[in-house]
Amino acid sequence: MSSDAMTNSQATLWFSRHSPLLDQAVSAIHQRGYWAPFPEHPKAYPAESLASAAAEFQTLLGQPFELQGVGEIGRAGEEQSPYGFALGIHYPQYDPDTLLETQQSLIGGWRDAGPQTRVAVALEAIHRLNALSPLMAQAVQHTTGQSANMAFQAGGPHAQDRAVEAVAYSWDAMAEIPQSVLWRKPMGKRGQLSLTKRWHIVPRGISLSIACCTFPTWNTYPGLFASLVTGNPVVIKPHPDSILPLALTVKVLQEVLTEAGYDPRLVMLAVDTRPAPLAARLATDPRVRLIDFTGSSHFGNWLEQHAHQAEVFTEKAGLNTVIIDSMADITAVAGNLGFSLSLYSGQMCTSPQVIYIPASGVMVGGECWSFEQVADALVSSIAQWTADPAQACGFLGAIQSEGTLVRIQQCREAITGRGSVLLDSKSLIHPDFPSARVQTPLLLALASQDQDLYGKEQFGPIAYLVRTHGTAESLSLTRQTLLAQGAIALAIYTTRDDVLAQAENLAQDVAVSLSINLDGSFYMNQSATFSDFHGTGGNPAANTSLTDRGFISRRFVVVQSRRPATAATD
Amino acid sequence: MSSDAMTNSQATLWFSRHSPLLDQAVSAIHQRGYWAPFPEHPKAYPAESLASAAAEFQTLLGQPFELQGVGEIGRAGEEQSPYGFALGIHYPQYDPDTLLETQQSLIGGWRDAGPQTRVAVALEAIHRLNALSPLMAQAVQHTTGQSANMAFQAGGPHAQDRAVEAVAYSWDAMAEIPQSVLWRKPMGKRGQLSLTKRWHIVPRGISLSIACCTFPTWNTYPGLFASLVTGNPVVIKPHPDSILPLALTVKVLQEVLTEAGYDPRLVMLAVDTRPAPLAARLATDPRVRLIDFTGSSHFGNWLEQHAHQAEVFTEKAGLNTVIIDSMADITAVAGNLGFSLSLYSGQMCTSPQVIYIPASGVMVGGECWSFEQVADALVSSIAQWTADPAQACGFLGAIQSEGTLVRIQQCREAITGRGSVLLDSKSLIHPDFPSARVQTPLLLALASQDQDLYGKEQFGPIAYLVRTHGTAESLSLTRQTLLAQGAIALAIYTTRDDVLAQAENLAQDVAVSLSINLDGSFYMNQSATFSDFHGTGGNPAANTSLTDRGFISRRFVVVQSRRPATAATD
Repeated sequence: MSSDAMTNSQATLWFSRHSPLLDQAVSAIHQRGYWAPFPEHPKAYPAESLASAAAEFQTLLGQPFELQGVGEIGRAGEEQSPYGFALGIHYPQYDPDTLLETQQSLIGGWRDAGPQTRVAVALEAIHRLNALSPLMAQAVQHTTGQSANMAFQAGGPHAQDRAVEAVAYSWDAMAEIPQSVLWRKPMGKRGQLSLTKRWHIVPRGISLSIACCTFPTWNTYPGLFASLVTGNPVVIKPHPDSILPLALTVKVLQEVLTEAGYDPRLVMLAVDTRPAPLAARLATDPRVRLIDFTGSSHFGNWLEQHAHQAEVFTEKAGLNTVIIDSMADITAVAGNLGFSLSLYSGQMCTSPQVIYIPASGVMVGGECWSFEQVADALVSSIAQWTADPAQACGFLGAIQSEGTLVRIQQCREAITGRGSVLLDSKSLIHPDFPSARVQTPLLLALASQDQDLYGKEQFGPIAYLVRTHGTAESLSLTRQTLLAQGAIALAIYTTRDDVLAQAENLAQDVAVSLSINLDGSFYMNQSATFSDFHGTGGNPAANTSLTDRGFISRRFVVVQSRRPATAATD
Repeated sequence: MSSDAMTNSQATLWFSRHSPLLDQAVSAIHQRGYWAPFPEHPKAYPAESLASAAAEFQTLLGQPFELQGVGEIGRAGEEQSPYGFALGIHYPQYDPDTLLETQQSLIGGWRDAGPQTRVAVALEAIHRLNALSPLMAQAVQHTTGQSANMAFQAGGPHAQDRAVEAVAYSWDAMAEIPQSVLWRKPMGKRGQLSLTKRWHIVPRGISLSIACCTFPTWNTYPGLFASLVTGNPVVIKPHPDSILPLALTVKVLQEVLTEAGYDPRLVMLAVDTRPAPLAARLATDPRVRLIDFTGSSHFGNWLEQHAHQAEVFTEKAGLNTVIIDSMADITAVAGNLGFSLSLYSGQMCTSPQVIYIPASGVMVGGECWSFEQVADALVSSIAQWTADPAQACGFLGAIQSEGTLVRIQQCREAITGRGSVLLDSKSLIHPDFPSARVQTPLLLALASQDQDLYGKEQFGPIAYLVRTHGTAESLSLTRQTLLAQGAIALAIYTTRDDVLAQAENLAQDVAVSLSINLDGSFYMNQSATFSDFHGTGGNPAANTSLTDRGFISRRFVVVQSRRPATAATD
């Protein structure tokens, strides 16, 4: 009887093909143990697609990139690989008003497709994106500057995992609304009142994804897929530096939509340029009802305060903090932190930025290590990690933006007369890309009163070791900066139960995720889909979490109808 | 091992006492068939408490009302019963800054109490409120003007049902987050990575409830209880006309909190006056992180646009609409609609306000009834319902605000030369309260082009019968006004399947709840807890629904910690 019943045979096939995975994913979001739908290791992918990816990427360069759109007004695209060459790909640009008008007209049909068809389309697209991972890795590497390996994992399977997670949350949220019920209220001597009730999942409206240049797929997929499967058309506004990964994504989605018999323009790319940005124009259009944003606090806060007509989900800047109190094994800790600081040259939203260490030193095993000794251990660790440039390029990646190189220089200079350079940032020569912008981390030492210097995010391979009057001050500085700036990640190293309890409490007070005593090969930067909530949504660094119920539940509303039950149903 | 484990013996006892009800409630929100935790009929309550309620109410009049607070700066209270007398109750007022500072300091302790303790406290309080229903009915009647019977049901058990529903949703949302897990990721030849993860439910912060004067308990309880059980202290800012029902509510909650060993000031009343309103001051304080509001669109929209630091949940004005296309039995339909229009003199947020009828008439059974005949049927129905003043007062209630009397006059005058008065509003004499402001509905006829007159809510017993060029125009006018103004309720009468399908579609397009062919003793004004979603959150009349996931999920965040698993746990 339901109008939501699937009538689309292609989608039916896809749904039955992917529903075992969907079931596992729904179970995983509730269990939150380890689970991943897609293998993260390149070796698990076909050798031929790995081998041909670079050549395939080359064929895209310097060419127009074709997508389904409407009202094309020109071409744009000035992507530069941080590895030292121009991509020269030209993407179509559409008149924003025509784009939104077109998507607005598609809402009813996509809504009426029902949750099952929409989920089937999404899961089929995600599977095709998974098969495309080797090419996607090239696209991500040469727009974000990520290392080849990170670009494969974070740009490919890890982003796809996040997409499946968002689909699973959305499916779970939609599935808990019954399609219909016979409501019977006993009225004593007056018999009973009987109503037939129906419920429909109704999308909020056009969903806008404003993507970042460092993790274009990983950060965009959750909002994109959550919006799409809950019935909203999606317009993706990529960062002008990192369009290709999302252009490839839109192409796949448009193909799948077309095969399922829907208008491919349910997902469109809105390419802009630095001189003529589109985000604010789109974000304040009354037809845009959902906005997912990853980027600067400045624009994120602006969106939260000006896009009143929309539900706004933001991930912004913060101040990721490490508190060092005490530890068992300094080599292990320094090894772990040294890698955390180096990974993708600190360009992750979870990279450590400030490390508080008591001036009086820390207990390591039974022994007191001075601030300088701890700092030295960290410096040595980074020196060791980055000793072999070829190997180091495998996790440092390249610096996405010229601005970050400038920032390194500025931060180094800003501490003059107040702090010291513990480890200077060096340029490394990439074995395959001699013009790549590769930099090792810059480690600076400051005193706790220098909060004007270390107290806000300096994006890139820049970290401060801050000399505090003890762990109590480290904790209180953390409280202060995180209440003001927020953070995605907080880490503590301590062997003391009371300090650990204080840190657990502090983490709750400032609503930040806490990593404790990570000294092996798991890093504070990492976020495991289906287990870790990325961001809490409760501090200034992000107003949402990837992915929790709050990220999903306001993307659709439930519309009911009710009527007297007929004798047949009563 | 969990720090959330209950250590509070009083709360443990309450939890075990109330958990069967909680289980039923959780099951009910998923099933959405008929279920209610509390009987709605006064007869189900002890005869002695029903008998003594009026006298008990009398003892409160003219007295100071005592509550737990901090920084008392004076007394306020100028409530006037719409039944014609002053309540003369004086409530404590607190310095807003001291109030918020106090509640801020209580957040950690209430958070650490854990979901189970908080739910136990809430359910115990709701049960005590249920026992208090006869007195609450007096308080609601003599502040809102509701009839005795409605005040009992809507102010008592129905509001308590909504409270249980909010607790059930909150419990369900918190319970789905595991307390901890052992996360083990296989790493091939490198063995496995093992982390112990813990998750904590962390409240967002102080929650502000800005209540309305017509349904102070029914509209306030969902937000109040959802916020409280998810760990947030709650400050209730009652409407100056309707303080007592919420003062009684706060008193009960403070008693229960005290018995459980918590600070009673986790729930406080912030009484203001018309000359010195407090809502905007409280709503923009950085410590206030959640706001529930019921009231005017003007202030609701202001809150949505200015209280950036908070999650804002609003229920505002709309334009509840009835589309009459065709029907089987006009006596039944007119009877139903006549009562809908009369109930609480149109002062419900679900009362019909505009009724579209084709100028060419409607098919009734096999016969065409003219606009005038349909209008006459409706007029006769209301005349019949209100023929016996004593009986009529039992559902009309009294007019809450003087302003509504003025509005009746204004609306009557505004149509001069453009429309006609089909049925004038009459004053009735209440048998027990001769000074009560009792008014029968005003029915006005207008043409479809007179949207400037009928196109926005005229709160109170005022409804427009609008002559359209046919059902197609009725549907399109509905689309237009609901997109602009929103509505909580839309109703249609039709015997035609194609019109019904169009109405179902329209309801989804404008995200409004639809009642179809109600012609018995269930009315479009009614909203059944655990089954009906009250408001969709998708149109301008309300940005949230009572109660769905979106109403709950942003009241808390999840904060995790993770650490290497020890050998013992691995």
